Amino acid sequence: MPDAHRPATLIALDWGTSSLRAYLLDDAGGVRDHRESPHGIRALPEGGFPAAFAEAVHGWPEALPVLMSGMIGARSGWREAPYAEIGPQGVGPEELAADLTDIADLTGRPAWIVPGVAARGPSGPDVMRGEETQVVGAGLSGGTVALPGTHSKWVEIREGRIAGFRTSMTGELYAALSRHTILADTLSPPADAAEDAAGFAEGLAAARALEAPGDLLGAFFSIRARALFAELSPGSTGPFLSGLLIGAEIAANAGADSGPVRLIANAALAARYATALTAWGRESQTLPPDIAAAGLHALARAARLTGDAT
Amino acid sequence: MPDAHRPATLIALDWGTSSLRAYLLDDAGGVRDHRESPHGIRALPEGGFPAAFAEAVHGWPEALPVLMSGMIGARSGWREAPYAEIGPQGVGPEELAADLTDIADLTGRPAWIVPGVAARGPSGPDVMRGEETQVVGAGLSGGTVALPGTHSKWVEIREGRIAGFRTSMTGELYAALSRHTILADTLSPPADAAEDAAGFAEGLAAARALEAPGDLLGAFFSIRARALFAELSPGSTGPFLSGLLIGAEIAANAGADSGPVRLIANAALAARYATALTAWGRESQTLPPDIAAAGLHALARAARLTGDAT
Repeated sequence: MPDAHRPATLIALDWGTSSLRAYLLDDAGGVRDHRESPHGIRALPEGGFPAAFAEAVHGWPEALPVLMSGMIGARSGWREAPYAEIGPQGVGPEELAADLTDIADLTGRPAWIVPGVAARGPSGPDVMRGEETQVVGAGLSGGTVALPGTHSKWVEIREGRIAGFRTSMTGELYAALSRHTILADTLSPPADAAEDAAGFAEGLAAARALEAPGDLLGAFFSIRARALFAELSPGSTGPFLSGLLIGAEIAANAGADSGPVRLIANAALAARYATALTAWGRESQTLPPDIAAAGLHALARAARLTGDAT
Repeated sequence: MPDAHRPATLIALDWGTSSLRAYLLDDAGGVRDHRESPHGIRALPEGGFPAAFAEAVHGWPEALPVLMSGMIGARSGWREAPYAEIGPQGVGPEELAADLTDIADLTGRPAWIVPGVAARGPSGPDVMRGEETQVVGAGLSGGTVALPGTHSKWVEIREGRIAGFRTSMTGELYAALSRHTILADTLSPPADAAEDAAGFAEGLAAARALEAPGDLLGAFFSIRARALFAELSPGSTGPFLSGLLIGAEIAANAGADSGPVRLIANAALAARYATALTAWGRESQTLPPDIAAAGLHALARAARLTGDAT
C-alpha cells in the first residue's frame, strides 16, 4: 500500500495498441491513483491523442513529469521515439533513460516517451515497445522473461541488462486462424474446464511431435481433419490450436537457459503458459500486475525526472 | 482436339469451394464443351445446388451420366460422400470407382460423387476431396504430385496408387496473415516483377534459415521489423511472406524422393513453386489444365458408367 504521506512525483502512462493505463506514483513508486481506458493508439476517442491524454491525467498535478512507454512511441503513435539498439553488451536502463523523447510541445506538460528496443539477430531484426519497460519493472535479475500475448516477447536478461529478445506472432496468429480460416467453421467454445484442459494438452502434444518448421502448416489443417473424424470435439479445437501455438513458441524460445521463466501476462494467459512450460520441463513464476508502472518509476529516477526517495 | 465424330458420353463436374467447372466429354476423354462458374459450394446462386447444377449442364444430353468430384461431396456439400481410407497398399482408382455416391434423386439424372481420400498418419488424420481425381487425371506414375493452393496437398504415388499425402494450410494462412494481422499495415503490391522476385527469394532464404517449428512464428513478426528498418520495401513484403510460407512447405514435404515434382496449379502459382523447388534442388514439371476432367473420365470408365473407346 502506498504511504499517504509520500508526495506524488510522477505520472506514468503504459500506452499500448488497445489500452491506456495511467498511474499517479509517489516517490517510492507507490500507486496513489490509477485509471485504465480502452484508448490505445488504435482506438483513440474523438480529439485523438490530446483528448485521450487529457482524460488519462485529468485532475492530477500539472507540474508532475509524465513518462510514457509502449506503442505511443511507434511511427503510428503520437511521436516516434527511437529504438535503443542491443549491442554486444545488451541494453540497460541507463541507455533507455538517456534517450527519452521529449513530447512537452504536444502535451503542454513536461512529458517524455521511453525508447523501444531493437535487436538484429541472425533471423532478421526484431523490435519491442513497452515490453522493455515492463522488464525493467520486473527487475533485471538474470534469466528469461516471457511476455505472452498478441506478439509474445522472450527476453534474455544478463548482468542487469537486456541481452536479447525474440518475438513470436502467437496471439495474433491464433486470432487470425480461428476467425479467418476454415478452422472458424470448426471452433466453438469449450463446454467446461475439463474440455478446455484436454484440448490444450493435446495441442501441446502435437507441438512436441513437430519436426520441420513447415510442419506447423500441416498441423493447422490437421485440426480440421481431427474434428471431421471426431478425434477432437468442437469445443476442444480452440484449446488444441492454443496448445499447438504456445507449445511451438515455447519449444523455439525456452531453450536458452534452464532456470524458471518469469511470466508477465494476465492470470488466464499466464496459467496457460505455466502449464505448457511444465510440459517442457521448465518452471515458471508469474509476476504481479502494474509492472509497467514500476518500470516507468525506475526509468524516471534513472533519468532524474523525479527526486530520490531516500 | 476432340474428334467431332466421337459421341459425348460423360458430363464431368469439378465442383469445389469457390468454383464449378463443367465438361462435356467424348468416349476418349476429349472435351467437347466446357463451362466455368463461380458457383462453388460456398458461393451458390439463388436456388442453391439444384440451380447451380442446372446452369452447369444446361442443354447437354440428359441421359448422360454425370460424375462429380470435389467439395460437393463434403459434409457441407450437396450430399456427403465417404472417404476412401489409405491402407497399407494405398488407394487406387478401382477403390475410388467402386465407392461412388449416387445422387440421382437430387439431380434428376444419373449422377454420382467420387469419394474423398483420408489418411491417418502419425501427425493426425488428413483429408482431400477433389485432389484424388486430379491426381488420377495426372496419371499415376510414381513420385510426388504437389497441388499448391489454399490447402496445398503433397501426394506420394507408388505402383499406380496414392500411397500417402499431407496438407499444408499455406494459401489460406497467407491470406489470413496478409489481411488480418499487423502485416496488413505493411504489405503493398510489388511495383514490378523484379521487386516481386527479389522479395520472394528473400522469403525462401528466410525459410531455409528456420530451425525449430516455432521459428515460423518469429519469422512472421520479423517481416514487420524488416519493413520498419527498410530491409524490405513495402512492395516486397508480400512476396517475402509468400516465399517464407512456400519454402517452409517445401522443406517439410519435398524430401521424400528426389525425382521431379509434378505441379498441378495455375501458371502463376506453379511458377512460384517451381522457383522454390529449384532453390531446394528439386526439379518440377507443370501439368496441363483440365486435369480433373481427365481424372473423372478415367474414374467413370473404371466404374463402367461409360463405354470403352476401343
